[in-house]
Amino acid sequence: MAHGCFESLWDSALELNCEASVIAGARVLDAGVDCRGSLAAGLGLARLCLGDLATVSYSPTSPQDLVGLAVSIQTDHPVRACLGGQYAGWPVSVGDYFAMASGPMRSLRGKEAMLEQLQLSRPATGDDFAVGVLESGTLPGEDVIQAMADECGVDSSRLCLAVAPSTSIAGSAQVVSRSVETALHKLHALEFDVARVMSAHGDAPLPPPAKLGDTVGGIGRTNDAMLYGARVTLWIDAEDDLIESVAAKIPSESSEDHGQPFAKTFQRYDYDFYRVDPMLFSPAVVTIHSLQTGKSWRHGQLNNRVLRESFGL
Amino acid sequence: MAHGCFESLWDSALELNCEASVIAGARVLDAGVDCRGSLAAGLGLARLCLGDLATVSYSPTSPQDLVGLAVSIQTDHPVRACLGGQYAGWPVSVGDYFAMASGPMRSLRGKEAMLEQLQLSRPATGDDFAVGVLESGTLPGEDVIQAMADECGVDSSRLCLAVAPSTSIAGSAQVVSRSVETALHKLHALEFDVARVMSAHGDAPLPPPAKLGDTVGGIGRTNDAMLYGARVTLWIDAEDDLIESVAAKIPSESSEDHGQPFAKTFQRYDYDFYRVDPMLFSPAVVTIHSLQTGKSWRHGQLNNRVLRESFGL
Amino acid sequence: MAHGCFESLWDSALELNCEASVIAGARVLDAGVDCRGSLAAGLGLARLCLGDLATVSYSPTSPQDLVGLAVSIQTDHPVRACLGGQYAGWPVSVGDYFAMASGPMRSLRGKEAMLEQLQLSRPATGDDFAVGVLESGTLPGEDVIQAMADECGVDSSRLCLAVAPSTSIAGSAQVVSRSVETALHKLHALEFDVARVMSAHGDAPLPPPAKLGDTVGGIGRTNDAMLYGARVTLWIDAEDDLIESVAAKIPSESSEDHGQPFAKTFQRYDYDFYRVDPMLFSPAVVTIHSLQTGKSWRHGQLNNRVLRESFGL
Repeated sequence: MAHGCFESLWDSALELNCEASVIAGARVLDAGVDCRGSLAAGLGLARLCLGDLATVSYSPTSPQDLVGLAVSIQTDHPVRACLGGQYAGWPVSVGDYFAMASGPMRSLRGKEAMLEQLQLSRPATGDDFAVGVLESGTLPGEDVIQAMADECGVDSSRLCLAVAPSTSIAGSAQVVSRSVETALHKLHALEFDVARVMSAHGDAPLPPPAKLGDTVGGIGRTNDAMLYGARVTLWIDAEDDLIESVAAKIPSESSEDHGQPFAKTFQRYDYDFYRVDPMLFSPAVVTIHSLQTGKSWRHGQLNNRVLRESFGL
Repeated sequence: MAHGCFESLWDSALELNCEASVIAGARVLDAGVDCRGSLAAGLGLARLCLGDLATVSYSPTSPQDLVGLAVSIQTDHPVRACLGGQYAGWPVSVGDYFAMASGPMRSLRGKEAMLEQLQLSRPATGDDFAVGVLESGTLPGEDVIQAMADECGVDSSRLCLAVAPSTSIAGSAQVVSRSVETALHKLHALEFDVARVMSAHGDAPLPPPAKLGDTVGGIGRTNDAMLYGARVTLWIDAEDDLIESVAAKIPSESSEDHGQPFAKTFQRYDYDFYRVDPMLFSPAVVTIHSLQTGKSWRHGQLNNRVLRESFGL
Repeated sequence: MAHGCFESLWDSALELNCEASVIAGARVLDAGVDCRGSLAAGLGLARLCLGDLATVSYSPTSPQDLVGLAVSIQTDHPVRACLGGQYAGWPVSVGDYFAMASGPMRSLRGKEAMLEQLQLSRPATGDDFAVGVLESGTLPGEDVIQAMADECGVDSSRLCLAVAPSTSIAGSAQVVSRSVETALHKLHALEFDVARVMSAHGDAPLPPPAKLGDTVGGIGRTNDAMLYGARVTLWIDAEDDLIESVAAKIPSESSEDHGQPFAKTFQRYDYDFYRVDPMLFSPAVVTIHSLQTGKSWRHGQLNNRVLRESFGL
């Protein structure tokens, strides 16, 4: 299904203000590196990462909100779509090149413990396409392509990539479509059985793109859209005590690193992701509805003060 | 058109977390009885009931709202879509089995006075499919199917049903998509000529599903989403004095049974629907725009206090 | 692409509560003159004018808002879609007949200075259809059709028009879909290079239709939806000082004619459009995001007091 999404993006490259090129046999759609990309490309990249197992759209916000558009997601296949597809769990590092990779191709690569635990990993067959998105300010070279195709176990002609930096419209839209994903990832980290999440909805403000080339700024604003602006609802089929034991821990406010723009926190840790509290990465507000007892939990809160500082608005 | 909706749901059963089965020759799609159903199935059931004559969608609410999603409907064929299709005007009672039935199949059954008055009733021809939704916590048995097919005048192989309890995601979404329908039904009860309503829009909060098996709880929350949370706009082509004579009576607050969660009212009347004031069943806020004079009327108000109590939020 | 939109409207005339007729060989879709039209027709007319280069939709507003629906637009081709298509830059005046014409057919006519400056003008070829919308309370006669076909350089059989008065549902929806267009037009008037606007989003309240036949009332309410209710976001690829020099001038509040319902201003100038300050016609609030520096600008404010007075709500 992700391949279908890719074909449709590829065919619409011009209209999406994207550039299509073939690198070492792989098809690479530039959605914001050497071109401007677009709002529409942002949705396209999000859907591709989700393997078309979710509905993603822009929705106008209310006048009280900080920005004019939110990115909304709704899915009845949250684990496959968000953790199997959307999570940026593959740090691609080849020579000087670095990018965070997301998308269903990660299932063919099979090196992420989470994917193994969730049984979302399997070797490629000859029919498979490896489809994903690179968050990067540079297009991958031939060595990167070859290494990625090898890791996925496919011929490079079956590798389909879209690339966008966090400072582009499409890149930031795609990243802030991950509101539900961050909630699920946090639940998994809390050792909750995410297969119990039956349906999910989330929205988060679309941040203003950061300064061209300012990767940290881009990462900062898109993370802040999650940490201080995202609202997620989960419909869960589990016992109340299981839900109760995790509910208050899911929102970002449960982390000690919560409370200031992410770019500042990142700087404080010398831009070393692994020193940031992993429990920080989650939505601002999380509501859980139990499908068993009809009970609801809501924790966390929006923080417009931090968003204002981060977005420069 | 409802049959087209049903075929598309039937083909997507797996993806919708629904279960397709054939009972006494009829196709029955379970959207929440022995399976979990889904948000997407909720929209599918709503569209089926509306005979595809309306646009139905989830829309994210603003942070001030109680729940994260609203169900929105917009139609330029309000009478056919909502009263002809969506209204749950057929109480199916066969042996021990009971369900409220909605959908265009009611037009073939032809026993509802309102459908006769609105000329929305006709006998089945050999080409007709009878399509509808059952609100029930149990799948219909062979006797129920046969009785329903007989009442509609079709062979059971041409009966197409979807089933969901009011406590399921799909069932509650389908019920709260009836914001415009409740306004029209109230107008009809007030003896206003509903054919004068040219276009309509409505939205209502999607309540948390009630406790599994708690039918009264499910009915309570979905009704409260209407009575205390639904906002409807009607574009009407009628004289001002005709509109004036009914406008203030449409919202739920015009009823003496208004003011507390519906489950409590229902209990007070020993769970006897026929003792509840029929004028209660209408949206919280109704806005009317006259297409003749440009004048507007707005009556009623949202009541978050009751919603909070009802939804447990 | 506009022709594709027209064909699809033409085929759905009945369902859209529109009336299709052929006048002097041209196809004319009445969306509100001798018929009621519809909400759906309003979106159809908007898309047609935009040459399908934008996403237009109704979105439910929040309970604090004055009306229930807003018209939202989002585009990655703002200049072509909004100025090339949507702007009502052709005052059609033939004999007694008058209408404001919008749509891509204006590019074939080629008499607007703005279209020349933006290189959006070219002579018709034999393959071209001339497609557009007339804002008028009267259908065009044969003389009008012939004059318009001549001006566009096409045979009248290749002229495709939709007609709706500003007092109809479809007409008002189509006009208030112009939130982004008014911002771009104002930027162009301020001599800013609009080609620098890469993407845009806007929304504006859908006003209650004015009294049947009250053209000034219809123009008043739809203009007020822009001037006092529209919020626009522009993503611009330009230097900060260029943006800074225009940002505060874009919203309607920068005009001295700002502050009261447009119908009153119009009356004050004896209904002479050319005496109204051209700088008035712009959205209430405009937010600009720089794609170069990550900086944002926001100017203007919503004015519910004037909207309330204008809409009679």
